[in-house]
Amino acid sequence: MEITRPLDLLNSAKDKKVMVELKNGKQFVGKLVAFDMHINTVLDEAEEMENGETKRKIGKVFLRGDTIILISPSD
Amino acid sequence: MEITRPLDLLNSAKDKKVMVELKNGKQFVGKLVAFDMHINTVLDEAEEMENGETKRKIGKVFLRGDTIILISPSD
Amino acid sequence: MEITRPLDLLNSAKDKKVMVELKNGKQFVGKLVAFDMHINTVLDEAEEMENGETKRKIGKVFLRGDTIILISPSD
Amino acid sequence: MEITRPLDLLNSAKDKKVMVELKNGKQFVGKLVAFDMHINTVLDEAEEMENGETKRKIGKVFLRGDTIILISPSD
Amino acid sequence: MEITRPLDLLNSAKDKKVMVELKNGKQFVGKLVAFDMHINTVLDEAEEMENGETKRKIGKVFLRGDTIILISPSD
Amino acid sequence: MEITRPLDLLNSAKDKKVMVELKNGKQFVGKLVAFDMHINTVLDEAEEMENGETKRKIGKVFLRGDTIILISPSD
Amino acid sequence: MEITRPLDLLNSAKDKKVMVELKNGKQFVGKLVAFDMHINTVLDEAEEMENGETKRKIGKVFLRGDTIILISPSD
Repeated sequence: MEITRPLDLLNSAKDKKVMVELKNGKQFVGKLVAFDMHINTVLDEAEEMENGETKRKIGKVFLRGDTIILISPSD
Repeated sequence: MEITRPLDLLNSAKDKKVMVELKNGKQFVGKLVAFDMHINTVLDEAEEMENGETKRKIGKVFLRGDTIILISPSD
Repeated sequence: MEITRPLDLLNSAKDKKVMVELKNGKQFVGKLVAFDMHINTVLDEAEEMENGETKRKIGKVFLRGDTIILISPSD
Repeated sequence: MEITRPLDLLNSAKDKKVMVELKNGKQFVGKLVAFDMHINTVLDEAEEMENGETKRKIGKVFLRGDTIILISPSD
Repeated sequence: MEITRPLDLLNSAKDKKVMVELKNGKQFVGKLVAFDMHINTVLDEAEEMENGETKRKIGKVFLRGDTIILISPSD
Repeated sequence: MEITRPLDLLNSAKDKKVMVELKNGKQFVGKLVAFDMHINTVLDEAEEMENGETKRKIGKVFLRGDTIILISPSD
Repeated sequence: MEITRPLDLLNSAKDKKVMVELKNGKQFVGKLVAFDMHINTVLDEAEEMENGETKRKIGKVFLRGDTIILISPSD
């Protein structure tokens, strides 16, 4: 899949594992289920990470777009 | 229910227990009563949590969307 | 009154006592007189609270919506 | 004058003394001369207050709306 | 000149000396050359002030509106 | 390529190495794959840098535009 | 060139040396190549300054408008 617009990367990562970093420094990993143009994002099987370790498991989660710094596919 | 847009997760969580985290670090749990596209959110039977313990019970509460980091259904 | 949109809670709380928390940590209680879609809010008989005690009485007050975290009806 | 929208309170306070609090913690008192829908506000005979004492007199002043937390009529 | 809208004060201060305070706490004095509805502002013969003393002279300067707290005419 | 609008610089840097600085102080280098008018940006072969050293390799990454301070082509 | 709108100052400074200050306190000097209504700005031959000394040379750089406090032509 060719990426010509930023959201193309997120589209190509749907149903795959991603890492999300928030403005408050928190990191989540999980399966990317949905996102919109505001970058509001839903993860499934989400885990909050700290120093590479799972801090807590939160399952499905809605992340408000304006709190997100970056989203990176895991592979 | 299939989730294709981020707000679908919130729709599927209506009338169910959710956990909400705010930018100031506060956590609330309560029944999700209503939300809108700004993620303004109303909880019922809401409790402010601290380290997994109930800090105070506040009943019905309107949370302004731009203060919300994440919303996670409890089950 | 059924609450289907977040502002319905505020409508149902008109002329009643509410508690408002601001982003700077301040708390106000007072009678909810008016609000708009930006959540700009007017309270009457407003008091600034600190640790459950009245810190000062300020009567009528206009609160700019973008400084508000939450609004909770007192009953 | 009945207040049905938040700006009605500001309209009723025109040409009267108000207290304005800013996000940086500063307080101003002065005569409310003008405001707009962004809550950009002009005071006349404005004084910056600190702990209830006049810190400096600044006369006419334009306050940018997005820095304002609250506006309260003095009487 | 009567002031009925907040920008009227800035219009009446054109080509006159004003004091501008920014969100980062800095103060500038200079001749008000231009402004727009975002309160983007141009000063000429601008000086950054600190405790009432000139800290540095910067001549013409464009100040982005969303960094401005207040603008006060000097007379 | 002549640069008449700011985004022209980003267009001329497509598929080339760029350095991106975020509001939280983090620096990334990587190949600029895509950007949009919000400055949402996708890098490939991205590395987080600290004091000129690679801190971690993150491959493809979506950076939300409102967290970006600057983007500079490497050559 | 007469300046009647704030952006006129930036237009008159095109291809000339300017100083740019960012919200994070950083200063850049460089040749003003382009800007837009959001004050997104491109500098060429840009240098980051610290206490009046060159800290690093970064050549061409895109600065996101909402991080900019002020832009001042050097002459």
